[in-house]
Amino acid sequence: MRNLYKYLIYVSLATFTCINSSFARDPVGAATLKENPNLPVDYVWILICAFLVMFMQAGFAMLESGFCRAKNVTNIIAKNLIDFCLGSIIFFAFGYALMMGDDWHGLIGTTGWFMFGEYYDVSKYLNMFWMLVFCATSATIVSGAVAERLKFGAYLIYTLVVTGIIYPIYGHWAWGGGWLSKIPLGLGFLDFAGSGVVHALGGFVGLAGALVLGPRYGKYKNGVPQAIPGHSVSLAALGVLILWFGWFGFNPGSTYSAHHLKISIVALNTNLAAAAGGISALLISYFNTGKWDITMALNGVIAGLVAITASCAWVEGWAAILIGFIAGGLMYFSVRLLDSAGIDDPVGAVSVHGICGLWGLLTVGIFADGTYGVYSVEPPYAVGLLYGGGWGQFLAQLVGLVVLFIWAFGAGYVLFKVMDRLFGIRVSPEEELKGLDIYEHGVPAYPDFYSKV
Amino acid sequence: MRNLYKYLIYVSLATFTCINSSFARDPVGAATLKENPNLPVDYVWILICAFLVMFMQAGFAMLESGFCRAKNVTNIIAKNLIDFCLGSIIFFAFGYALMMGDDWHGLIGTTGWFMFGEYYDVSKYLNMFWMLVFCATSATIVSGAVAERLKFGAYLIYTLVVTGIIYPIYGHWAWGGGWLSKIPLGLGFLDFAGSGVVHALGGFVGLAGALVLGPRYGKYKNGVPQAIPGHSVSLAALGVLILWFGWFGFNPGSTYSAHHLKISIVALNTNLAAAAGGISALLISYFNTGKWDITMALNGVIAGLVAITASCAWVEGWAAILIGFIAGGLMYFSVRLLDSAGIDDPVGAVSVHGICGLWGLLTVGIFADGTYGVYSVEPPYAVGLLYGGGWGQFLAQLVGLVVLFIWAFGAGYVLFKVMDRLFGIRVSPEEELKGLDIYEHGVPAYPDFYSKV
Amino acid sequence: MRNLYKYLIYVSLATFTCINSSFARDPVGAATLKENPNLPVDYVWILICAFLVMFMQAGFAMLESGFCRAKNVTNIIAKNLIDFCLGSIIFFAFGYALMMGDDWHGLIGTTGWFMFGEYYDVSKYLNMFWMLVFCATSATIVSGAVAERLKFGAYLIYTLVVTGIIYPIYGHWAWGGGWLSKIPLGLGFLDFAGSGVVHALGGFVGLAGALVLGPRYGKYKNGVPQAIPGHSVSLAALGVLILWFGWFGFNPGSTYSAHHLKISIVALNTNLAAAAGGISALLISYFNTGKWDITMALNGVIAGLVAITASCAWVEGWAAILIGFIAGGLMYFSVRLLDSAGIDDPVGAVSVHGICGLWGLLTVGIFADGTYGVYSVEPPYAVGLLYGGGWGQFLAQLVGLVVLFIWAFGAGYVLFKVMDRLFGIRVSPEEELKGLDIYEHGVPAYPDFYSKV
Repeated sequence: MRNLYKYLIYVSLATFTCINSSFARDPVGAATLKENPNLPVDYVWILICAFLVMFMQAGFAMLESGFCRAKNVTNIIAKNLIDFCLGSIIFFAFGYALMMGDDWHGLIGTTGWFMFGEYYDVSKYLNMFWMLVFCATSATIVSGAVAERLKFGAYLIYTLVVTGIIYPIYGHWAWGGGWLSKIPLGLGFLDFAGSGVVHALGGFVGLAGALVLGPRYGKYKNGVPQAIPGHSVSLAALGVLILWFGWFGFNPGSTYSAHHLKISIVALNTNLAAAAGGISALLISYFNTGKWDITMALNGVIAGLVAITASCAWVEGWAAILIGFIAGGLMYFSVRLLDSAGIDDPVGAVSVHGICGLWGLLTVGIFADGTYGVYSVEPPYAVGLLYGGGWGQFLAQLVGLVVLFIWAFGAGYVLFKVMDRLFGIRVSPEEELKGLDIYEHGVPAYPDFYSKV
Repeated sequence: MRNLYKYLIYVSLATFTCINSSFARDPVGAATLKENPNLPVDYVWILICAFLVMFMQAGFAMLESGFCRAKNVTNIIAKNLIDFCLGSIIFFAFGYALMMGDDWHGLIGTTGWFMFGEYYDVSKYLNMFWMLVFCATSATIVSGAVAERLKFGAYLIYTLVVTGIIYPIYGHWAWGGGWLSKIPLGLGFLDFAGSGVVHALGGFVGLAGALVLGPRYGKYKNGVPQAIPGHSVSLAALGVLILWFGWFGFNPGSTYSAHHLKISIVALNTNLAAAAGGISALLISYFNTGKWDITMALNGVIAGLVAITASCAWVEGWAAILIGFIAGGLMYFSVRLLDSAGIDDPVGAVSVHGICGLWGLLTVGIFADGTYGVYSVEPPYAVGLLYGGGWGQFLAQLVGLVVLFIWAFGAGYVLFKVMDRLFGIRVSPEEELKGLDIYEHGVPAYPDFYSKV
Repeated sequence: MRNLYKYLIYVSLATFTCINSSFARDPVGAATLKENPNLPVDYVWILICAFLVMFMQAGFAMLESGFCRAKNVTNIIAKNLIDFCLGSIIFFAFGYALMMGDDWHGLIGTTGWFMFGEYYDVSKYLNMFWMLVFCATSATIVSGAVAERLKFGAYLIYTLVVTGIIYPIYGHWAWGGGWLSKIPLGLGFLDFAGSGVVHALGGFVGLAGALVLGPRYGKYKNGVPQAIPGHSVSLAALGVLILWFGWFGFNPGSTYSAHHLKISIVALNTNLAAAAGGISALLISYFNTGKWDITMALNGVIAGLVAITASCAWVEGWAAILIGFIAGGLMYFSVRLLDSAGIDDPVGAVSVHGICGLWGLLTVGIFADGTYGVYSVEPPYAVGLLYGGGWGQFLAQLVGLVVLFIWAFGAGYVLFKVMDRLFGIRVSPEEELKGLDIYEHGVPAYPDFYSKV
């Protein structure tokens, strides 16, 4: 009887199992430890950093809901929650294999479906968990750009496609041993913790979504963009501070080893860029409007964090400050540009994650100081323009950047356009006016308070 | 003079000291380190996981207050805060000794009161801290089930009894070397991180409280249960995401060693079950009501987490998904059942922690895959029904489950009933109508906003 | 060309570089690891604890905004965010060198400006990051005491001075090898994690600010202090729980080594003092007013945490409880005293951080139990009055305490007074009445809700 159950479950998944290549299998962990007794501190480091990255989900949920109107808070939170839920399962089942499985002509991975068979191994589960929380971060970025008007059902389908296909494929090219990591320029395309792979990808899929959807009702009056303030500065600020905190898992953890003492430099650089991004965005907005616009400072912090993500292990402290400072400014002007171009991005996700993500990719080619390799403390080290590395690394970054934009925006555009044709992805005008919370979810976010909108 | 002070303080506690058995004493820590130079990474692992578990207090406070009405927010937060404060002191003074002290006939522990004398030791303080944050988690669960109508004074007494007696005694039976851990079935009753010891115990004490209190005013109209929506979906969601984050301390940390590389599997399983629980609860509610009910998805995530807590070190990833998925459904139908049975549990604590906690206990007997022992990477390993382990482990789980329900519900019922007879545990109808915040605490939660209730 | 860029950047900072003393330089980290292969676990410990300390910024932001009125929430959050941003850059550029650089006559440090040249080293970046998050904690405390009336521009200047001069100089005296750490009494002035260096310093600079500013409009009617309730108990509670969580980085991390197993004792002591502080403040307020005043309990928790910060590595568990319990009471009566003395401290920062910080310094001289040295598990150990240590350590603490008060309050007073003379540091009465959010920032915190103030 017990064997029957087991048999049925196994057979139902056998399609995937059969193509999993042979691999070390150690679900107990004792053999792996025996082979490398120094692993516990690396496991502790990677896991705790992964927990911090997972916690960024709370940061995004608070930031995005703070920047939305009260009538759409349940909806934006539902999207943030469910993309992590759904993404976790999908990435476990398909995404990870596509991204990190055995390489097939530099294009996709092909093994590890459902972590079955030989993949039931402590190291594999560790790597899967690590990759999963990064994938989820990328997916959740898009919810901000399409906020307050995208149907919930469409968002579910979007989640499946991004975490199952769009993200893993580019991830394979850059991180899974695919072709971008091997282009013969510098050390190949480099993106330490994912300015591009995670953030810019999410940002430009979001841009596609915002374009297909069109602006929210009331965003433009006679073509002039109107400010639509979010419902809670305190929640938005909480979100940013949680993200800042979580980013210390994102960046330093990406050494994927506690034996790279470089983690201290990565941590400090991350902090400096965030701080500089906040300052520059605040100052620029002050000089432009005469007000200390905290919402800009909040997005400036994230802009700095996004930008330093690609280069944090390869640059000095002063460079981190400069990178963050420039990111804050880029974000500010990008927000204005998109606004006047008629693209409505309620939380600024495209500017913060997309534009500053690209800037981050370039910084590796400019500021890399020749003290760290490709996730290795051994030479060869990455060297940028300012340190005598020549144009090689810069060009590698440029290639990765262009490919990223085309892939993310292109695939995103096709996805949203196809869905729109098939069933329409935008809620009805009446629903948009009264808020998505009641129509889609039946649950207003703040039923005890009198609300203006 | 200085000796006089010292003398007085010591004598006042001497009653407890004298019965503390002889034990290793090393408040400096140098001797312990010398004996085992690999300990630092274990200490780091256990402590940081303990910090994460402590942070779950913030998760519960936000989740429960989000699910309450604005007029009772100060009260629910006060209860969440003070049960951790009071519980910390009581468990330090009594609970730990009762739970983890030298065993007396399999029933209670008898040494370690106030961590005095020989207990002043780095390892003992570590274990105490670890056990303390788990005890506090259990205690705080009850506040949700009795929300919006229990007197604050009664809650103080409840806290004393749960953290000083009810929790430690069952904890001793299961984790402190007591009789349940030694029943000759399978490897004895197993509860890896506390689906039963922590969650179901809290859940069924809460059920007793909810029963003795009766439903809130307005919960039933002509016997038909009415939805009483919470005041803030954003706070509730924040609470759930904090809990999800904190659970990565709760479950992986329960190996109590970083040298068990199994921690990676525990972490991923925890995440998968949470995700699956959220999805199943969302889908079920959608198919039943046509709305994407995010409050159900939020509780579904916690349901998945509770269920996987008992078995997370013993199961494969696909099983974790299945366990979480079933938990989400169990939670959904249990909430409906309790509602129609006239039991008013404002935040769903009984269903989430009680019912899914029991389900979690059973899953060990079903899905344990024979790759982990009793907090050990050495055999014998736990094996469930599906992996050829036979009914032994399943029956052990069933015994522990039944004993747990009887103990938690029974002791809880006696506690609340006795208090009710002595001084009445429910606030006055007027107070309930106008909210507990002003009457009990003199502090409305949101004095600057116009509120509907 | 590339060399030109590099040259220009270097020259622009050369003023600082030239005075940096020769020092180990290892930006790769490989040499440092080779010298001490046990470092990874210490790096992991210190970094993660630093992340937790950084997260306390979110705690302060939520606690202080919760205790402010809705009309000033954007402002208090802007201050909390920007002091961390600005402080990070300033401390990196100047503060760290002044505090931890090579000692000059026991008064100031003189090397390490901008972490340049020889300071580009994994250990130096680690230490800088650690010191930076502590500095930022101290700076942010002041925002609470001067809340709801200080101009934002003045706060920017204050931040520069505190993180660049006031904090680093006292920090050098106590922690950077300066004269206080070497006074020939006991083991010299001891402040384990900064009851004084961080908290009391922030508290008394805040007192100076509150004095120079004067009370808020409406705080006193005919000389009788009026309660001005904060706008959100739930945010305030969230802030306290985040702080409690972050404090587990603050205190245990201050061993600056995972090889001191004492970290377990530090963690438990921290928790016990927090719990006891919350209980004592709640009980005292109940006996005084008949209400369970949760805002007092929240501040009581912080009071206990502040007090144990100086002594947590040197005392037993029972002493930690006593220290926290007394701190809760001290805080309560100090709040009342300041209120009746006409000093308006909106969030109680002076009482919580200032008064309880001083109490914390004294506790080292009283309760130190002779089991830990100066950040060392090797003798000599600190011994307080109750353990036969005599008055030496107590007097050392007293000296440090008096010097701290004079320095913090004096420097703070001069700073705020000079700014007030130069340009006036208080917002206009109209702005104060209508709230700082719209005037200073152009962004109301909660535009969707109807507000009473």
